[in-house]
Formats: sequence, C-alpha cells, structure tokens
Amino acid sequence: MKESTGKVPGLAVVLVGQRQDSLAYVRKKIMACHEVGFRFSLAELPESCTEEEICDALSNYNKDASIHGILVQLPLPQHFDEGKILNVLSLEKDVDGFHPLNIGNLAIQGREPLFIPCTPKGCIELLLRSDVEIAGKRAVVIGRSNIVGLPAFLLLQVIHLSHIAVNLLHSYKSNFLQISIPHEHCLQRHHATVSIVHAYSENPEMITREADILVAAAGVPNLVRGSWLKPGAVVLDVGINPIEDLESENGYRLIGDVCFDEAVKIASAITPVPGGVGPMTVAMLLQNTLEAAKRALHLT
Amino acid sequence: MKESTGKVPGLAVVLVGQRQDSLAYVRKKIMACHEVGFRFSLAELPESCTEEEICDALSNYNKDASIHGILVQLPLPQHFDEGKILNVLSLEKDVDGFHPLNIGNLAIQGREPLFIPCTPKGCIELLLRSDVEIAGKRAVVIGRSNIVGLPAFLLLQVIHLSHIAVNLLHSYKSNFLQISIPHEHCLQRHHATVSIVHAYSENPEMITREADILVAAAGVPNLVRGSWLKPGAVVLDVGINPIEDLESENGYRLIGDVCFDEAVKIASAITPVPGGVGPMTVAMLLQNTLEAAKRALHLT
Repeated sequence: MKESTGKVPGLAVVLVGQRQDSLAYVRKKIMACHEVGFRFSLAELPESCTEEEICDALSNYNKDASIHGILVQLPLPQHFDEGKILNVLSLEKDVDGFHPLNIGNLAIQGREPLFIPCTPKGCIELLLRSDVEIAGKRAVVIGRSNIVGLPAFLLLQVIHLSHIAVNLLHSYKSNFLQISIPHEHCLQRHHATVSIVHAYSENPEMITREADILVAAAGVPNLVRGSWLKPGAVVLDVGINPIEDLESENGYRLIGDVCFDEAVKIASAITPVPGGVGPMTVAMLLQNTLEAAKRALHLT
Repeated sequence: MKESTGKVPGLAVVLVGQRQDSLAYVRKKIMACHEVGFRFSLAELPESCTEEEICDALSNYNKDASIHGILVQLPLPQHFDEGKILNVLSLEKDVDGFHPLNIGNLAIQGREPLFIPCTPKGCIELLLRSDVEIAGKRAVVIGRSNIVGLPAFLLLQVIHLSHIAVNLLHSYKSNFLQISIPHEHCLQRHHATVSIVHAYSENPEMITREADILVAAAGVPNLVRGSWLKPGAVVLDVGINPIEDLESENGYRLIGDVCFDEAVKIASAITPVPGGVGPMTVAMLLQNTLEAAKRALHLT
C-alpha cells in the first residue's frame, strides 16, 4: 500500500485512566503497528476527564484522514456512559466492530458487517487454519459478553471471511505478525450447532461436555476443568485472568478460563494463556485497520 | 389515546404480488386493526412492479404523519432486493423490527431496540403469561431465520419487555384481541441456556430432547415428533405449513412444525397451529404500532 499510494494504514486508540491490563494491551497494539509499519496514535486521558473530552478526542480522530481505525480501550471507568461514547465513533472507523449496526449486520443472514469484532474473529481464524471441522458440530460458548460471547455465537453459525488473511507465524510461541498475500473475499457459512452457557445456566459442566468446539470467555480463572470436556474437543480459551504470583516480575501472572494442565490431556487442541487467542486478537485488529484503510482509499 | 389526543395509531402494509398466504396474513392484520380501532392503509402492487415503485410507496408512508407503523409483507417476489427495500423504511416506523440497527440493539446487552420482531416477542409473551420458568432452563430454537430463529434466540437470553401489554383473551380459541392497562416499562433478563438447531445440525432429535422450552421455526411440516421431546417440555410451534386437504374449503389446511397429536401427550404445554403463535404475532404487531404512535405523539 505504501508503495502504490504513499500512504499507510493508521490506528488510533483512546485510553482513559491507568488500568494495568489496559496499558499492557495498548502496548501490544503499539508494538504490532510498529512491526507491520502502521501509523499509531494514542490519546491518553486521565480518569478524572469529562465525557465531552473523550468524545472530542474521538471526533478529532473521526476527521483525521491519516487515521483509518479507531478504538476506545475498554472497559472505561464505570462512571462513563460507554454506549453514548461508542456512538460518537465513525462507523467506517469502528475497527472493534461494536457499533449496533455492525452487530446487527453480523447477526442478519444476507447482510455483511463492515468489521467483525477482533477476538471472536481470531477464534474462528484459528479454527479454520487448524482445519477444525465446524459444520454440524456442537459448539458451546461460555459467557455472553458483547465483546466475545455474543459475536462468537453469531460467527460460529455464519463466518464472514474478510478480504485479507493475517498470517500468524509461530502463534503459540511468539507474537511476530506478518500480513500475508490477500485471498479472495468470501462469505462462508460454517453451520455449527451453538449453545451459549452463562452464570445462570443449570448444569454448565454437562452442557460443556457436549461441545466438539468450546469457546471459554467467562472471565473466571480455571472455571473449565478436565472433567468438563468431551475427549477430543477443540478448546479456545479467551479468558485472561491475572492471579497473584510473587515470583513473577510484576507480582502477578495471567491464566485462562480453562485449567490448562487438566484440559491438555483430554482436548485434541487447545490454546494456551497467554499466547493463544490474545495475539490473534491483535492480528485481527490490524486486519480490520488495513481493511478500513483500503476502503477509505478505494483500494479493493 | 383517541380521547386524549383525537388521534389513533395507524398501520400501513405494503403488499407485492398475490401470494395466498400473504393475502391471508394481511386480512388478519386488517381485521385486528379494525377490532382495536387502529387506522389501516394498504399499498398493493403487482408482482411486475419496479423496485422504485415499492420504495416510493414506503417513502410516502414514511412521510405520512397518520401512519406510525409500516411493514413490508414478506417474502417479496424473489427478484427484488429485500435488504435494499427494507433499508428505505423509517427506523421509527419499522414495527417488524427487522432493521439491522434494531437487531443490533436487541443483541447487545445494555442497549434497547425500538421494536422487537413480532413473532418471537409473541412467543416470549406466551411463556411469561403461562408462568413458564425460563432462567437457567435449556431452550432449543429450531431454525435460524432472521424473522424468528435468530431474534427468538436473543430474546430467550434477554427479554426486553415493552411499555404496554397486550392481553390475548382465549388465545387458543379465538382471535379476539384487547389492549390492556399499561404496565411499567421494564427490561428483564431471563437467562435461558439457548441452542440453535438447523438443517446442518447433527443429531437434531437428541439436541431437541434436551429442551425444557422448544421453539420450532423450521418451516418443515411435522418435523418434531413425540420422540424428539423431553417429557414436560413447553412447546411453541411457529411453523405454519399449508398441506393439501381436499375436504377443506380452500383445498388446503395449515399444520405446524410439530406433530401435535404425538407432542400433546408428552409436552406440559403446547401451542396449536393454527391459533397459537399466529394470533400472538398479530397482537405484538398492534403493540409495536401503539408504541410507535405513542413515541411519535410524545405520549409515554
């Protein structure tokens, strides 16, 4: 793109407050943009800022032609109206794909969203690239968040594949990202039989044990034990839970929603935490930003 | 409303072509509007009309202040672009609730759609009014259409109850509708554990047998046999399938997706076809139209 147009894709992040995990995620995004040669811009606001200041930052990025993708690092401090703030974001730059119109177009058969939320998109990409059969299989999604659970449910039934593939090399061992050769744009239906399990579900263990494909996104450390799994199941662990660890550098380490040591003996494939779904989320964010840039520059 | 404002809610239907079932549905809507004192307007277009003529009819209703709800009787003849036509419809008058922004707001926790699609809304209303416990129970939806399956899935997890309840008297025996006293606006979460079964699902019978609550919306006559049901299950039969019947007046009669004679022995409650979910759909359409009118007239 740089060679043909003299322009590079630009990503902007609005960060409010100083949450340690948010800072860590933003650092990952900066590094990834740097590695692939994207422009990156960060608007940092203190937790004490006003809603108007956040909206102003977003409006400025909406108008900035060198920025093609914008995201608000979530969660915002609780006193802010998340829905209202996200509504300010230009639909064409909503690379997180959280706008209701995007989610609606993702849900409705025969329509196409502009962007697919990055984490569930990364989950599906992992399944496809690992040649996991999805059609007709039973998939269980644990957790029904707007960010992961709901769009993962929608995607497992209908997969919208986008213009460009991101190649995640050594995905389990490093975060090295590389944009690969574009492949055909296609919309594929993958037809899993999907159930959503959540905090109110009776017998979550029994239901989870029916899953050929499990997406764990509850945010509860080690929730899914080995006994919850069907032998040979494919397990995508989306949980990223910090637990105290005095031996580590920061005083904590990250574990998933799945008890990895037990699950690895029963599953046919499993993503580790950290290093599994997380880097895929960043890769999909780059992919969405590249798509946004190509759309803005009328390259197809 | 008529006494306090001198105005009545108005519903408009755009009908393209002469499908027998569509004509029958439109007649039901006309009768229902007549019974509750709503204004009704019908734009009938021949199958040979242009897309522009359909869009013009919609635009006129969009501008007409005496019309608060508009719907396009679906399905349209196949050569029309349904998505494009539905996009013309004013969001504030989309009483069918099929606009992607509506579906997105229905899907996202913490947001509220302007309208909930009538058939799944009617299903939930039947469950609530029959005191069926939903939280934690397993629900299976057969079929994943945009009109029923998908929104039914979303609603079973999160129920958005609207401003006004429609009282369906003798719902199983007559179509007599009566608008009842408004109750409080509330958003309730009902927390079923929901699975969607479809044509590609392996073992649909086994999965369906796990359901405490079954919504059958596949459009396949008598698909669900008695052996598919868990004893005591609550069955909502959304299928309306015409089958040849030389003894009936029109040469056909309507049957559901559930084999009623078998299911009635096993289910704890079941809706018949015709007369079950169908009249509820019409009732919910009136409710949505009344809500649209109240919103337009700033009555709350």
